[in-house]
Amino acid sequence: MHQPTTRMIPAPALADLDARSFRNGMARLAAAVNIITTIRDGEPYGFTASAVCSVTDTPPTLLVCVNRTNRTHPVIAASRILCVNTLSGPHEELSMAFAGGASTASMAERFRHGEWTTLATGAPVLADAAVAFDCRVKAFHEVGTHDVLICEVLALHEGSSGEGAAAQGLVYFDRRFHRLA
Amino acid sequence: MHQPTTRMIPAPALADLDARSFRNGMARLAAAVNIITTIRDGEPYGFTASAVCSVTDTPPTLLVCVNRTNRTHPVIAASRILCVNTLSGPHEELSMAFAGGASTASMAERFRHGEWTTLATGAPVLADAAVAFDCRVKAFHEVGTHDVLICEVLALHEGSSGEGAAAQGLVYFDRRFHRLA
Repeated sequence: MHQPTTRMIPAPALADLDARSFRNGMARLAAAVNIITTIRDGEPYGFTASAVCSVTDTPPTLLVCVNRTNRTHPVIAASRILCVNTLSGPHEELSMAFAGGASTASMAERFRHGEWTTLATGAPVLADAAVAFDCRVKAFHEVGTHDVLICEVLALHEGSSGEGAAAQGLVYFDRRFHRLA
Repeated sequence: MHQPTTRMIPAPALADLDARSFRNGMARLAAAVNIITTIRDGEPYGFTASAVCSVTDTPPTLLVCVNRTNRTHPVIAASRILCVNTLSGPHEELSMAFAGGASTASMAERFRHGEWTTLATGAPVLADAAVAFDCRVKAFHEVGTHDVLICEVLALHEGSSGEGAAAQGLVYFDRRFHRLA
């Protein structure tokens, strides 16, 4: 057998490679799609996020990971409240309206999509969310570019527990949306 | 119209009610299913968990929420390593073998299910995982009954990126499993 020819190719920048591999790997970990909202001086803010998970039921607590460059981050840091609005099947378009790529749109424009109400904190609650968790932020843990926000759930709302498309879960996996029946 | 009759019923324990409502709400937030593993003195440990999410790609970091009463918790606290093995469609039975309800089974019995290998840390890696993230635990944040473990990803493995059932994502939503095509 011939030895393989050695080709002189530049070594990949390890940090870049790792970040890309990590993102590719994370695309294989399915996650629910949520709109995280808050409010300051009567102005609503919100963005789409999948990095949300349950922490404990004693006391009822979830967490949200937020990039510190996200324009809603300083608003949450000031208000110390947020609502996690978990989306259902029909909300694919709504999730895009609140996604990073839509960042040229003003916050007021974003909130023209969907029907919004409030619960305990005053943060915007999506009327037909699969479920909405209205929270007080108890702690911020800095991790690299992001903060992990520890959030105590004060109130919750189930907007679409019925039959049909509104009862379907919405999940992001392999870089596309999936509906759960 | 008649006034409704007042019935003397005991007020529900608010903490209990809140915890139950929270768990019911969380059932509406879909999550990937994972087996978290570690190793100490050559003995593998593992349990099924859905509270996993991406934190940042700089440096590649994820988090896992673990109940401090989980028998694997003190082992991770000592070893400071873990592997997140994200499951795919055919792994429903495997996930049950590592679930809390199966806690009478010894750890050795659990690991008789599935085919296991290792990557960087020595924690067990599921050969046909949808993706496996081999991690060093950087920090523990105590939140109520649980710890949030901040984990730097040192290596990853994609075991089932092909076609067919093994490429499907496995998700828990509305208290049952769903497969993502």
